[in-house]
Amino acid sequence: DRHGAAAGLTQGWHLSHTTRQNIRNSELAPLGMRAWQIKDELRQGARKPYKELIDVSSADPHRAGVKPLSFVRQVLAVCYYPQLAKSDKLPADVRQRAQRLLGTCAGGSAGSYCPAGGIPEIIDIVCEFISRRDDGVPSYPENIFITSGAQRAFVEILNILVNTLRSPITGVLTPCPSYPPGNMAVVMLGGAVVPYYLDEEQGWELKIDELHRALESAKGVCDPTVLYVINPGNPTGHVQSRKSIEEVIRFASEKRLFLMVDEVYQDSVFEQESRFVSYKKVLAEMGPPLSHTVEMASFHSVSKGFIGECGLRGGYVELVNVDPSVMRNLYTLMSRDASTTTGQLALDLMINPPQPGDPSYPLTAITLHISDLRVLEVLNSLPGISCQPVKGGGYALPRLHLPPGAIQKAKEVGMLPDYFYCSRLLEETELCVGAGSENGQRESTYHIRYRQSSDEVLRRLTSFHIQFMKDFS
Amino acid sequence: DRHGAAAGLTQGWHLSHTTRQNIRNSELAPLGMRAWQIKDELRQGARKPYKELIDVSSADPHRAGVKPLSFVRQVLAVCYYPQLAKSDKLPADVRQRAQRLLGTCAGGSAGSYCPAGGIPEIIDIVCEFISRRDDGVPSYPENIFITSGAQRAFVEILNILVNTLRSPITGVLTPCPSYPPGNMAVVMLGGAVVPYYLDEEQGWELKIDELHRALESAKGVCDPTVLYVINPGNPTGHVQSRKSIEEVIRFASEKRLFLMVDEVYQDSVFEQESRFVSYKKVLAEMGPPLSHTVEMASFHSVSKGFIGECGLRGGYVELVNVDPSVMRNLYTLMSRDASTTTGQLALDLMINPPQPGDPSYPLTAITLHISDLRVLEVLNSLPGISCQPVKGGGYALPRLHLPPGAIQKAKEVGMLPDYFYCSRLLEETELCVGAGSENGQRESTYHIRYRQSSDEVLRRLTSFHIQFMKDFS
Ligand SMILES: Cc1ncc(COP(=O)(O)O)c(C=O)c1O
Ligand SMILES: Cc1ncc(COP(=O)(O)O)c(C=O)c1O
Repeated sequence: DRHGAAAGLTQGWHLSHTTRQNIRNSELAPLGMRAWQIKDELRQGARKPYKELIDVSSADPHRAGVKPLSFVRQVLAVCYYPQLAKSDKLPADVRQRAQRLLGTCAGGSAGSYCPAGGIPEIIDIVCEFISRRDDGVPSYPENIFITSGAQRAFVEILNILVNTLRSPITGVLTPCPSYPPGNMAVVMLGGAVVPYYLDEEQGWELKIDELHRALESAKGVCDPTVLYVINPGNPTGHVQSRKSIEEVIRFASEKRLFLMVDEVYQDSVFEQESRFVSYKKVLAEMGPPLSHTVEMASFHSVSKGFIGECGLRGGYVELVNVDPSVMRNLYTLMSRDASTTTGQLALDLMINPPQPGDPSYPLTAITLHISDLRVLEVLNSLPGISCQPVKGGGYALPRLHLPPGAIQKAKEVGMLPDYFYCSRLLEETELCVGAGSENGQRESTYHIRYRQSSDEVLRRLTSFHIQFMKDFS
Repeated sequence: DRHGAAAGLTQGWHLSHTTRQNIRNSELAPLGMRAWQIKDELRQGARKPYKELIDVSSADPHRAGVKPLSFVRQVLAVCYYPQLAKSDKLPADVRQRAQRLLGTCAGGSAGSYCPAGGIPEIIDIVCEFISRRDDGVPSYPENIFITSGAQRAFVEILNILVNTLRSPITGVLTPCPSYPPGNMAVVMLGGAVVPYYLDEEQGWELKIDELHRALESAKGVCDPTVLYVINPGNPTGHVQSRKSIEEVIRFASEKRLFLMVDEVYQDSVFEQESRFVSYKKVLAEMGPPLSHTVEMASFHSVSKGFIGECGLRGGYVELVNVDPSVMRNLYTLMSRDASTTTGQLALDLMINPPQPGDPSYPLTAITLHISDLRVLEVLNSLPGISCQPVKGGGYALPRLHLPPGAIQKAKEVGMLPDYFYCSRLLEETELCVGAGSENGQRESTYHIRYRQSSDEVLRRLTSFHIQFMKDFS
């Protein structure tokens, strides 16, 4: 059943929300909850093979133990406690930046309310960033909303696109594997998820034929009016080429689909050959009539990129070619968003990192290269595991070729095979990775999802995996 | 027309959202927008009677120029930049507090995602606070949601109470004068505002007879199922007695109304004779059957109280006697809320201020007493102005007895009379106060709303007012 993924999610949603404990942890996968417990057990002195739990199942770098950037934290600290700027212990660029940012706040304080929709100066800064990024394609303040994170913006935009009063209900073409809260939002708002499968063998490429197939399959079930794309891919790590983006835009235009483009990983492209190109730039360069007609929303977030501050809740959405009447509804919806002052200020920090010559520049160099080629080599050399190149994004998504014995055993204990693997890995090595079934995957394929953060991850994974394969073959 | 207030709000809502500039400033009243401009004009060297604009129209203390508390800001600064704790320049209690709070965050970082619904430790801290406040009446973690501010929580709760599919639509009994975003939320969600008038002559007391009248007046128009109460009052500054609260609870029970109790000003009671008593405590002490049946939601926020941090977006809602099926819906809705980590940590700071003996205690003493008796004396000694005692809350709401000439002039220039007064005040003295018409007021009565913050406010107001009364009589 094509709508299995959506149905599964709906069910999962209700099930996992019947108890309070689950709710509290609803942003964690079930494995994440167990990881949380193990951490407690370790703290209380339980004896386990490893002394420290490593949780790389989520895209949250700080949860995984990555240290935040001092530049970012220093500026935020001064914004909260401006007296710190008096000491010359903090770099000059930190103090100047904080002063400039405080100037955008009402009463010069990070503790005052922000105008709904965003601080005007920050909106202007976002526009400058976008047109710089897109080699001059203009960006207009009236098309930008600053929000408390990309996820929130996504929900508000979907809110006006999903029509539950009409029959059949609105369908949203959604990648598989996907970012689960995206699917969740569609289902919660009363829409239907129509999965299109990314082509794993081709490095998780998005194929237009598959979009056609997915659209066709929705006939009689729902009315697809939205196409959700994640580029760079999460959790798949692919990066779309300009040509691929052009194809998607043409498809959206032909089928009159609203493009929801999740570009939160735009600053996270690691592979030498790949480059992030925005949908907006490609659309603009395709010229009329497409450049004036294809409706689009693009998302970005301070949870990602070199800053990785998930707890601040800051992001923006830019809208392109959206009908003025729809924009008016959006204004109303967006003004309900309670965006924090520091979340907004952090957008400036993400967009304008220290430059060469600035005192804070040397410390701001990006330290994390998930696509470390050596990692791929190690993974691909193991029996029963294969991994596509990770060109960008936050994760690696290796495929597990599980022996029939392991699949049988999983059935017996009532778990999905990949979840069974992850659960054993967690119990035996205190390493928490995510199960591919949470993101969706082609039937009878199994994956694990993890955020590469240290060699130790690879060591634990390797030793567990070899033993696991032995046990079940 | 009884529903004039709601209709007016709806209209105002759409009007003020047709242009982008208005949206951006939608949390500001129109006067607030003009104040923003004047500030700019002053910065660019415009010659005006006073060199500095004072904006006391909003409840945002930092916008009005109040300095934030160092204790709060120091702890937040350390949370963002833990290295600061190494210096012994910061007080020991600041460093200890920050360390404890960081211990509640995933990965020990304020930059990691929070569990939806709230950080469990912070929820427990909120429960302890509530039962301490209520002399031992218990509070349960499963009834608390941490949210990105009280306003957000209010919208989410209303979301499940307002039924737009049924006819007649849901009515919400709402105080008049009121907190405008509350009314806005009702209208936006498709409900109807049913105003009940507070009794100005009796110090803005809530009278049960008036609740009966309002309920009666809704017949045939809407189906009132919710009663919204603000105690301590905003912008009215009244504080309900235990007896008054008991009456309201009995009324709610009799009429089967869900009680939305906005208690964000619970720490802001200034008058010697008055004391804040929570609805939850009174309900518990009334005993069964009421204590087990009356459904209630109570709100609190870090935007208020001694902390006054509006930009952090932190608050909580506690639910009482809510049906498990409704709670399940709420879990789902609340998990959409994107609450920031620091907003949650700030709740602890609000709830557990430094105690006598702590290094930060002396600086944390409350400096702001809006109900300064001298202020009332001055106001009440002026011709054409009268002000009820301000017992708590964030505002004073003096009544203007405008001469017919002023009302006539306002009509000519197409302004509401109180708005006309405020607009002249702003242009002539760079003092921005709010117009009572924004909060709602009985027909043919006029008020101004302002947050007392300095003697300078009173000086500008006095000199303007005397001249204004002369000009129009
Ligand atoms: C693809 C994708 N979109 C959106 C988000 C959410 O971003 P935010 O934290 O700004 O809500 C994430 C976070 O993991 C993500 O991976
Ligand atoms: C009565 C009342 N309720 C709620 C709020 C909103 O609080 P928050 O900033 O937490 O959304 C305010 C703010 O002014 C208020 O006065």
